[in-house]
Amino acid sequence: MDAIRWDGDRLELLDQRLLPRETRWLDIPTWTAAADAIRDMVVRGAPAIAITAAYGMAMAVRAGANRAQAHDGLLAARPTAVNLRWALERLAPLPDDQVTTGAEAIHEEDVAINRALGAWGAPLLDGGVITICNTGALATGGHGTALGMIRSACEAGKDVHVYALETRPYLQGARLTAVECAADGIPCTLITDGMAGALLATGRVQAAVVGCDRVAANGDTANKIGTYSLAVLCRHHDVPLYVAMPTSTLDRRCPDGAAIPIEERPAQEVTHLAGTPIAPAGTQVWNPAFDCTPADLITGWVTEHGIWKPPFPPGESGSLDSRPRNH
Amino acid sequence: MDAIRWDGDRLELLDQRLLPRETRWLDIPTWTAAADAIRDMVVRGAPAIAITAAYGMAMAVRAGANRAQAHDGLLAARPTAVNLRWALERLAPLPDDQVTTGAEAIHEEDVAINRALGAWGAPLLDGGVITICNTGALATGGHGTALGMIRSACEAGKDVHVYALETRPYLQGARLTAVECAADGIPCTLITDGMAGALLATGRVQAAVVGCDRVAANGDTANKIGTYSLAVLCRHHDVPLYVAMPTSTLDRRCPDGAAIPIEERPAQEVTHLAGTPIAPAGTQVWNPAFDCTPADLITGWVTEHGIWKPPFPPGESGSLDSRPRNH
Repeated sequence: MDAIRWDGDRLELLDQRLLPRETRWLDIPTWTAAADAIRDMVVRGAPAIAITAAYGMAMAVRAGANRAQAHDGLLAARPTAVNLRWALERLAPLPDDQVTTGAEAIHEEDVAINRALGAWGAPLLDGGVITICNTGALATGGHGTALGMIRSACEAGKDVHVYALETRPYLQGARLTAVECAADGIPCTLITDGMAGALLATGRVQAAVVGCDRVAANGDTANKIGTYSLAVLCRHHDVPLYVAMPTSTLDRRCPDGAAIPIEERPAQEVTHLAGTPIAPAGTQVWNPAFDCTPADLITGWVTEHGIWKPPFPPGESGSLDSRPRNH
Repeated sequence: MDAIRWDGDRLELLDQRLLPRETRWLDIPTWTAAADAIRDMVVRGAPAIAITAAYGMAMAVRAGANRAQAHDGLLAARPTAVNLRWALERLAPLPDDQVTTGAEAIHEEDVAINRALGAWGAPLLDGGVITICNTGALATGGHGTALGMIRSACEAGKDVHVYALETRPYLQGARLTAVECAADGIPCTLITDGMAGALLATGRVQAAVVGCDRVAANGDTANKIGTYSLAVLCRHHDVPLYVAMPTSTLDRRCPDGAAIPIEERPAQEVTHLAGTPIAPAGTQVWNPAFDCTPADLITGWVTEHGIWKPPFPPGESGSLDSRPRNH
């Protein structure tokens, strides 16, 4: 299962807005089409949009576009996930003839990073695991971050049962995580977001694991809306909450959660579902796509280098080779 | 706005499953049709299903049906809300020729009880008020319980802003509460269930008010799924949570929450939305319609007689006249 295809020349994205009803790949011929696809959520998930932006920059360079303009246009596509900026900044110093190779390296390394992260995280999981949004192969270059940990745990023979929050308004849990679990034979029960507390009260959940879109230097973590509610509920029930954090998602320049920009998205995502209105016309809506969980509600940040806690080890982000290992 | 019409002879129910897209009244000619309407959620809300069951019993008696059979059939329609049992038990000792009058009295008194409850509760509300599900005129004989408190507060000139949780899977918040607020000009912002924590963290919410389907003698409160999550989040943010409890919802025979039956409903409510599948075929689902909030997370129970805390005052339930006043 993958969401991003690059044949050395052309970018194709799986239109995740149509899943699970329809599997349709979209041709993305230009950097502006890549920016649009990110903004319109054809592709989503912090690592996946970073890879898409990297290929967008590669296409910009190959088309002779203004690199600064493409950089800024891609960067503005979605504001919260810092991986987008990380990918663009990694490509920025490269000469034109190395940008495509650089983008391909970001894509390939992402899978390796997720597998390393999963190997660190797998021992933390056993029994019921609650998760939010989609953090699997569809959200990344492959394998996944939080769902990658779950995949790695299953591969290691752990008896894991996933409880997937459906994750309104965009339903990534129902539409994407349930699909990935079914494809891999991972036991999965779908619940609505409001059921998290009742489920935790049953004792059926031993851990929570979530992805992240930007982690501040102090460990405050922006992730899909609903993560903060889940974190408070986990603390109330003494259930550990792990953040699966490829170090490309760590924003060392951001001191704390208050400095993380939280994207607000259109009201229609809440008032309509699959094109059908579910609220009266004119209903006022608040639709933040993310929320911020304070570091003190998080048990550990699982990275490709090990399980971290703030203050995080110094060093460059997002490469398996360049990072200090703190194990 | 009303959901139950009785002209002295015929029962009509507003089909709440179709709101807000379509306003359709269904003819309910028999007690079995009334039981079906309760089971199938044509009508919902603990007080409204009690009134419907009462009229169902009136129709049974008028049709010469076996009263015990009708009693049991109506009682089995939905298991959690105790108001259904309360209404049937109130009618049980009446001779045949008084059952219709008794049902009409339950309907009429419900509105008066809700207004009395609202008058007690209104002083507790000012500023942002978060609520779940629909607890308004559509859930009762009129005015509402938790939403009735909000209505009463608005009528008293309080500057209230409602934050309505959409309340998956059945979307009573989006489909019904948003409609009632719009009809009455009550400021209302719709959010998804997972946004509750993020909203509370902004400081925009001064109180939570929820309905109830059954309150145990010790104060443990069964209500719409998601209420327990909201209660934990309110406690974490030091926001008071009030339960709007007409005393007909107090089950003195039930010692605590563990003894309250929690209805589980079909998976399709979660996997489909407005007939459209939102999860892959075969997805496993957990779909409890209610959860139970322990008494210690609840600030106060607002009844038609005043604001109560356990141990609750003794006496009969569900009448404005027969109850001791503890103010």
